[in-house]
Amino acid sequence: MPNKLKRTELHELGEFRLIDHLTQNAKATNDSTILGVGDDAAVIDPAGKRMVVTTDLLLEGVHFDLTYFPIRHLGYKAVIVNLSDVYAMNATPKQITVSLGISKRFCLEDLDELYNGIYLACEKYGVDLVGGDTSTSYTGLTISVTAIGEANENELCYRSGAKVNDLICVTGNLGAAYMGLQLLEREKKVFEGNPNVKPQFTGWDYILERFLKPEARRPILEKLRALGIKPNAMIDISDGLSSEAMHICKNSKVGCRIYLEKLPIDQQTFKIAEEMGIDAIVAALNGGEDYELLFTVPIEQHDKVLGMEGVSIIGHITAENTGAFLITPDDKEIQLKAQGWNAIVEKE
Amino acid sequence: MPNKLKRTELHELGEFRLIDHLTQNAKATNDSTILGVGDDAAVIDPAGKRMVVTTDLLLEGVHFDLTYFPIRHLGYKAVIVNLSDVYAMNATPKQITVSLGISKRFCLEDLDELYNGIYLACEKYGVDLVGGDTSTSYTGLTISVTAIGEANENELCYRSGAKVNDLICVTGNLGAAYMGLQLLEREKKVFEGNPNVKPQFTGWDYILERFLKPEARRPILEKLRALGIKPNAMIDISDGLSSEAMHICKNSKVGCRIYLEKLPIDQQTFKIAEEMGIDAIVAALNGGEDYELLFTVPIEQHDKVLGMEGVSIIGHITAENTGAFLITPDDKEIQLKAQGWNAIVEKE
Repeated sequence: MPNKLKRTELHELGEFRLIDHLTQNAKATNDSTILGVGDDAAVIDPAGKRMVVTTDLLLEGVHFDLTYFPIRHLGYKAVIVNLSDVYAMNATPKQITVSLGISKRFCLEDLDELYNGIYLACEKYGVDLVGGDTSTSYTGLTISVTAIGEANENELCYRSGAKVNDLICVTGNLGAAYMGLQLLEREKKVFEGNPNVKPQFTGWDYILERFLKPEARRPILEKLRALGIKPNAMIDISDGLSSEAMHICKNSKVGCRIYLEKLPIDQQTFKIAEEMGIDAIVAALNGGEDYELLFTVPIEQHDKVLGMEGVSIIGHITAENTGAFLITPDDKEIQLKAQGWNAIVEKE
Repeated sequence: MPNKLKRTELHELGEFRLIDHLTQNAKATNDSTILGVGDDAAVIDPAGKRMVVTTDLLLEGVHFDLTYFPIRHLGYKAVIVNLSDVYAMNATPKQITVSLGISKRFCLEDLDELYNGIYLACEKYGVDLVGGDTSTSYTGLTISVTAIGEANENELCYRSGAKVNDLICVTGNLGAAYMGLQLLEREKKVFEGNPNVKPQFTGWDYILERFLKPEARRPILEKLRALGIKPNAMIDISDGLSSEAMHICKNSKVGCRIYLEKLPIDQQTFKIAEEMGIDAIVAALNGGEDYELLFTVPIEQHDKVLGMEGVSIIGHITAENTGAFLITPDDKEIQLKAQGWNAIVEKE
């Protein structure tokens, strides 16, 4: 851990020494990484594989609040959200680039913490940091990560491959990250009202971790491969199950039925939702940031998938003209809606 | 041109319709683009080529000022600065991703203009827009572009390849973009002092265009290839000749001598510099944003390079222990310095 008493201003180093400092631990561990940080561009040799590319932009105040988000976790999460997109193509992430806009509020020790998180994610998922751009900013912290992965052509899973009668499956559980965020926001408000009150986080470790330090679902893909199951369609859950299911339906030109009582929701999610007067089902459908995988498999794979730990079968694919609906235990049909960030734009 | 009287608020569309709208003209024109916008990640097939990846982050208030930067040009420039990095590897750009953080100040018509510029650059340079991330922002406009290019292994030019006695060459001319920026900043201040005074831009088209609508130096690379010349080292000039020459020296473990009277500087650059009391040589050395190419070739290529339009031989590579110096006409040696963005960080 860095010494919190120490504060090295960034202008003491200057741009080039700062970049050297932050990237000195960037190692090229993948065979496909020919040249990493330090030239006009990184060089990659995919050696006959298909490559996938995805990118995410994280803005302070919109995507994260540093009053409660440890900056090391933020670095970790900024990488994970991109790797999750690569895994959602059934590809293996190999390289990332990281661009930062940094305001004067941040010192070298802060950036070291951020990069500790970035490197931790790289190490855990076998990914090389190969480039980026470091810039000053007048408006807090901006993080832009691009991830590159590879796959054999026949391994790739698109959003567009779902077939009528496919089983709809989801990994892990839903809504936990959203409830973690709600808890953090609640305790922040309490603290702002009275700085002597200690935040009440005891017993909520799981939902907090789901928001602050999410993981990508690599092990599930390894299991699917070992079982000889290739999903027909796959997407990662960043905006909420409802949005993602609709993306699959739209791209695959199909409909779906998802059963409410099949939605995997953790006990902590239920408990905090009840305490805060939030519907846990709504958190699961629209909360987002779960970084679970939503995928469809041919119905013939039912028994194999049923036996998989950490995977729930939550519904099935129907014909396009039947629409996309959530089915309640009393057989009511509720139309699924895509959320996106409407709410945020309107709020601004 | 969009109707300036029309203002469509972004929340009227919502995230997904906005993305659909902005990317509806994104066409995959390259064989290597297998899948573009619309899935968790884009899919690329480099078909045996090496790939290069580079990224740049542009922040409103730091990298651009929309009071004088036409937003369409900004879109164009955001792409060009990345393509320039790809060309500096002697590779051919093929795909880009574009991520945006957009504040409520911007309406759909603004984004259409921005994307018109982005698509114009894509069309001119044969590049496909394959993905990105669109987000709300509380702090103006943020643009993050990642460019991907391809090259045969033996074509790639690194910063590290310069050899003692190589000729140092630069394309086009230097300092013009910096002087364009100075002019724009001057006229902005005049206008802020008295909004009735019309900005004085007549006769300065060239330097303004160099700042507001730069081009990447693709034709020079084509000429070099046609002449059978492969640079030993190459870099693009984004931070100024001085910084870039030092990058080549550091990475190649060599020194250099650059001759002041050989620096290519346009007449408009000299003229405005004199008018504003700025040393045009300093603008050329440290101004930056020229997006010219700095490269070294074996001395045997001297006659071939001498005959190339748009290329100046400005010096030569020396042994590492001799340092990196600018030689004045009266044979004084001035040590080259790397600038980076120190100045900006300190100013903030």
